[in-house]
Amino acid sequence: MQEKILETLKIKPGYVSGEEISSHLGISRQALWKHIQELRDSGYDIVAVPHLGYKLHGSPDRLLPFEIGDKLNTRLIGKKIYYHETIPSTMDIALQKGLEGAPEGTIVLAESQTKGRGRLGRGWVSPKYKGIYLSLILRPRISPLQAPVLTLLASVSICEAIKEATGLEAKIKWPNDILMHNKKLGGILTELSAETDQMHFMVIGIGLNVNLDKGSLLEHATSLKEEKQENINRVGLLQEILRQIEQNYNNFLKKGSGAVIEKWRNYNVTLGHRVKVAAHKEHLEGIAIDIDTDGGLLVRNDSGLVRKIMAGDVTHCR
Amino acid sequence: MQEKILETLKIKPGYVSGEEISSHLGISRQALWKHIQELRDSGYDIVAVPHLGYKLHGSPDRLLPFEIGDKLNTRLIGKKIYYHETIPSTMDIALQKGLEGAPEGTIVLAESQTKGRGRLGRGWVSPKYKGIYLSLILRPRISPLQAPVLTLLASVSICEAIKEATGLEAKIKWPNDILMHNKKLGGILTELSAETDQMHFMVIGIGLNVNLDKGSLLEHATSLKEEKQENINRVGLLQEILRQIEQNYNNFLKKGSGAVIEKWRNYNVTLGHRVKVAAHKEHLEGIAIDIDTDGGLLVRNDSGLVRKIMAGDVTHCR
Repeated sequence: MQEKILETLKIKPGYVSGEEISSHLGISRQALWKHIQELRDSGYDIVAVPHLGYKLHGSPDRLLPFEIGDKLNTRLIGKKIYYHETIPSTMDIALQKGLEGAPEGTIVLAESQTKGRGRLGRGWVSPKYKGIYLSLILRPRISPLQAPVLTLLASVSICEAIKEATGLEAKIKWPNDILMHNKKLGGILTELSAETDQMHFMVIGIGLNVNLDKGSLLEHATSLKEEKQENINRVGLLQEILRQIEQNYNNFLKKGSGAVIEKWRNYNVTLGHRVKVAAHKEHLEGIAIDIDTDGGLLVRNDSGLVRKIMAGDVTHCR
Repeated sequence: MQEKILETLKIKPGYVSGEEISSHLGISRQALWKHIQELRDSGYDIVAVPHLGYKLHGSPDRLLPFEIGDKLNTRLIGKKIYYHETIPSTMDIALQKGLEGAPEGTIVLAESQTKGRGRLGRGWVSPKYKGIYLSLILRPRISPLQAPVLTLLASVSICEAIKEATGLEAKIKWPNDILMHNKKLGGILTELSAETDQMHFMVIGIGLNVNLDKGSLLEHATSLKEEKQENINRVGLLQEILRQIEQNYNNFLKKGSGAVIEKWRNYNVTLGHRVKVAAHKEHLEGIAIDIDTDGGLLVRNDSGLVRKIMAGDVTHCR
């Protein structure tokens, strides 16, 4: 109902009388007043003037489900949204929801996280209302060995969405760092629940520095606000991320990883460079020559031997 | 307390007076009586004779935690036990407990399952008090790519435990079937929760036909009772399984997969045979020539090409 009231207020310029809204929506004046109060509590600046009615003066910068759902136009991704002001980690909730059978495309959003997670148990700084902290449940019928491709797919989708929403050009460092001007803008964490040969579900976690100010950014980190020197509309950006993921995911399910890999090559800053890789129990150094169809990084060491790395920490050598 | 009462009754031959037990354990006669009633409700046959006291006449064939814990002598596996009479699936509970941070070695036991799971969403028939339906949480710090070795480890441990507890010789069909005289005796289901390069935890599910009668067995299935023509002590067998897993798992953590693979070769009926494999999105036929260090099956087709299969359904060709 609050969604419908907002819709009405957004469509009409100027004041809309309480009578018009309540008769249009088939609710009492008293019920309308209660909903308006709740919307104000959520941060909506709604002015009420006797004899004139209500006017929407300003919307809060909140990732509220009905704001996200408004004109989202996806069929799958973000159709079900769990929204939280503050939670330990969107990953924990999404893994939980996944086990309970939440449908593919379900997302968990938080305005802030107290224990935001990065890869391998590292943290992710998640100040309130400043970033996008999102976990997405997917249920592709693939082998868990193919999971890394979905990490690439998410990183490509984020770069496309940033370009679309802000005009800025983000880059990708293999496997999961979103960079701008060589500083970290975001990261992706992929976790899966699977049998050895069949995915049950995977959760793709996205952490993106949107409106963080310089003071709250770590060294070597940046935010879209810092780069653009203006506040970014988080709702619009998030919607665009969900749309790009849906498009790329549908394409992946129909045609395989080819298109994702190709797009990834265009956005990446890793290929062609000399890199040090700290992977699971092994370290190697060499030239990152290409990416494989399963998302693995092919590194040629100085003896000419090519190794494929499925995940690890990459340092670009100067 | 019930555990201590049972212990006292088990140690002493003949009757033990209520006074002796209650003063030994520091509880009132009334409290003792209440505990005795509860033990009887769990199926313990405890006789009470005025002026003589209590005598344990018979223990139920139940996988009750304090029966399992009695002289188990493991350090890790089975130290924490969740026991249920009837649940949909021990896997679901164990995955849940794993997410909540349950310690390594935690096991979930059920006397029966209404939705017992096999590989790829298949069912597992789990009649009450007749089988061992067990899920074990492990947290090895390995890559998810190494998970299949732990399936082999579990199957080897089961064969060793069956031999130890019953003298019967079980065999293994790659990857997860426990056979006796070419009939299915048990199966193993491995599920994992992981990042692309780091296991968070894995759940090893074991379903074993122990005291099932011919009538409740599917075609091509058998039970230990059918093979031995006598009832098997489920508690003793389960304890032995936990002990064997602990020993093999410690060995694996210290020295890698070599010993497990070697034992597996001794128990397996797949290597050297012509097989058809239906793996993830592919089918192939050839000779199963060996098993790799990561648990993958090496199959040589008629053109001489060797492929490695990480998981799939194997049919032995005649």
